[in-house]
Amino acid sequence: MSTWQLARRCARMNPSIIREILKLTERSGVLSMAGGVPSADTFPVTAIAAACDKVLTEAPREALQYAASEGYMPLREWVAAQLQRTQSMAVKPEQVLITTGSQQGLDLVGKALIDAGTPVAVESPTYLGALQAFAPYEPAFAALDGDDDGPLPEAMRALPSSAPGTRFAYLLPNFQNPTGLVLPRVRREALVHAARAAAVPLVEDNPYGDLWFDEPTPPALASWWPEGVVYLGSFSKVLTPGFRLGYVVAPAELGPKLLQAKQASDLHTPIFNQRVVYEVIRNGFLDQHVPTIRARYRAQRDAMEAALRRHMPVGTAWRTPRGGMFFWLRLPEGLDAMPLLERAVAAGVAFVPGAPFFARPPDPRALRLSFVTLSPEQIERGIALLGGVLHEAVGAVAAS
Amino acid sequence: MSTWQLARRCARMNPSIIREILKLTERSGVLSMAGGVPSADTFPVTAIAAACDKVLTEAPREALQYAASEGYMPLREWVAAQLQRTQSMAVKPEQVLITTGSQQGLDLVGKALIDAGTPVAVESPTYLGALQAFAPYEPAFAALDGDDDGPLPEAMRALPSSAPGTRFAYLLPNFQNPTGLVLPRVRREALVHAARAAAVPLVEDNPYGDLWFDEPTPPALASWWPEGVVYLGSFSKVLTPGFRLGYVVAPAELGPKLLQAKQASDLHTPIFNQRVVYEVIRNGFLDQHVPTIRARYRAQRDAMEAALRRHMPVGTAWRTPRGGMFFWLRLPEGLDAMPLLERAVAAGVAFVPGAPFFARPPDPRALRLSFVTLSPEQIERGIALLGGVLHEAVGAVAAS
Repeated sequence: MSTWQLARRCARMNPSIIREILKLTERSGVLSMAGGVPSADTFPVTAIAAACDKVLTEAPREALQYAASEGYMPLREWVAAQLQRTQSMAVKPEQVLITTGSQQGLDLVGKALIDAGTPVAVESPTYLGALQAFAPYEPAFAALDGDDDGPLPEAMRALPSSAPGTRFAYLLPNFQNPTGLVLPRVRREALVHAARAAAVPLVEDNPYGDLWFDEPTPPALASWWPEGVVYLGSFSKVLTPGFRLGYVVAPAELGPKLLQAKQASDLHTPIFNQRVVYEVIRNGFLDQHVPTIRARYRAQRDAMEAALRRHMPVGTAWRTPRGGMFFWLRLPEGLDAMPLLERAVAAGVAFVPGAPFFARPPDPRALRLSFVTLSPEQIERGIALLGGVLHEAVGAVAAS
Repeated sequence: MSTWQLARRCARMNPSIIREILKLTERSGVLSMAGGVPSADTFPVTAIAAACDKVLTEAPREALQYAASEGYMPLREWVAAQLQRTQSMAVKPEQVLITTGSQQGLDLVGKALIDAGTPVAVESPTYLGALQAFAPYEPAFAALDGDDDGPLPEAMRALPSSAPGTRFAYLLPNFQNPTGLVLPRVRREALVHAARAAAVPLVEDNPYGDLWFDEPTPPALASWWPEGVVYLGSFSKVLTPGFRLGYVVAPAELGPKLLQAKQASDLHTPIFNQRVVYEVIRNGFLDQHVPTIRARYRAQRDAMEAALRRHMPVGTAWRTPRGGMFFWLRLPEGLDAMPLLERAVAAGVAFVPGAPFFARPPDPRALRLSFVTLSPEQIERGIALLGGVLHEAVGAVAAS
């Protein structure tokens, strides 16, 4: 007999399939396109080291002490100003809650808004980490139908009848994980209009928005409906994920409950980390730094695009991402990405099968490739290896 | 009409009364004994600065990248060895989960173990932050009767009938917040025995255990019942709370669910912070450092003890804490700490009323005083001011 009785919600909590896959792919020699991590070459080590030193010299007692749950006010002010500038959002610093990574923002949103059995609308596929953050609060996931421009406004408008009582719709408008797609401006406006009409508030997650290659992304959904959107941002992709710094911008109505959830969860985000990051970015550092990340990732995207054209079997489909970190492939008919992973790893290359990202029956032909952690030469070699595995599999399907 | 519908659990989430009180007491000139924070004079700034530099020089790519949800393995190994040494616990590094402060450990425990309506047994008074961490999971708090040696074993043994289905009992055996009391060794053994008999597992929280003044604390409850106790520890009181580093040691049975809850909550604890702290402590730093904190706090404890004897009105009761950070006072009959706070602040001194710490009808005469953030001279002055306010209040009671 066990002493411990688990909460019912534990049945909804499972080992991350992707983390299991990543373990498999960490074998040395494997060219991994499986990770969802930024390139370590983009971390501004010197600037961070200087900022650590400055903070510990100028404000050691404050940087090492307990701090406010809301976050470090100068950083909150910076976020508010930045969102005005890049996302056309009118945000007061008081609306900004600094979180321990953007993932915590998802957990806090789930804690404050989801009751067991209530619907939460998601794209399908969507960010696996969001499904994992929401799942312990036992929602009923409702998948929004979509096309290449994102979720369909009519699917949003239908939620009151298709999923009555939907607490919110979770959307990633920019270079979505895993698909890499961007919602065009007209689709954004139509979706916000539909969500308002359906009285379904939105949770807008934007970890990749700054990583555009050709042109800035359209304004945030929150810019059109400030009181109906919770907006999540992150420093993980433009500075460092190792500091775990993200933020939530909440309508005034919701702010206090997210703050109380934050207090209950970890009292506050490490104040040392907040002060160091503020010290790094306060004088426009990101205006110089982010373009270097864009240029690097764009070249890697180009390398992967070229390699895919060279090596993928006929019938493989993708849309070229215009930013972010991922290609999303659909394999030729008859193939199943999951069992192919093991063969790919044996051949020396790794990807993430698409299945875990779906809130509804998955597309077994889908897979995700990250282009940001390998050099253009490694990308060419890796995609060639993957092409070999796929050509062989296509041959087997044809022969069967 | 509001767009947002809050989860039912939000009714259980409230602004922290203590944080509101702390705002009141932050007025300059007020001698505050209200905070629950360590002395900033104890932060090893030089060692932390050197460690930041070392980590960013030797392993910048790893320290700034995403990392394992379990935590940094060398730090987990250190924790396991340390608990063996100081708590008589046999712990495998694999059982150690690094958390974003010990507060997160409480949240994860709540997430994994509490269903709405299920009882959770607590001391009364107990750590307010634990009540806040557990509350969103909607437990029914069951207060354990106790005496000056801690909760009564018979109260533990009675749980199956007094609070059937109790998921766990939450205990702070060392220099409890807020009472400052230590469970004697015999009480520990009796409580573990009773908990086993009642099949009620324990959550043991030990943020203050290293801060003993006269003699080390008895072994951890977990040392007698490894498979029935989740143990929580922290670096906040011996190094710095600003890094938000704590840990949970879980029985093998429970580990995977706490890990999945951790992944869902914030992916992982900042790896930079973990590596820096490991760098600081790896070569025995705490063996030199913690005794300096003990000596400092002991002198402050002595100063407050002397000042209390000098200035408290007859009928004020306390037990001298033998470690930790707090005195817990019971005011003379007829006094109520809550309304007295405003008069104390007006007089230039602040404390925390005891009421918020109770899971059942509070003792209005209780209040908590921290002795660690003021100098002995400030303590004398502050307690003298408090004595003035109390003498006046006692006089008013006598005259009425």
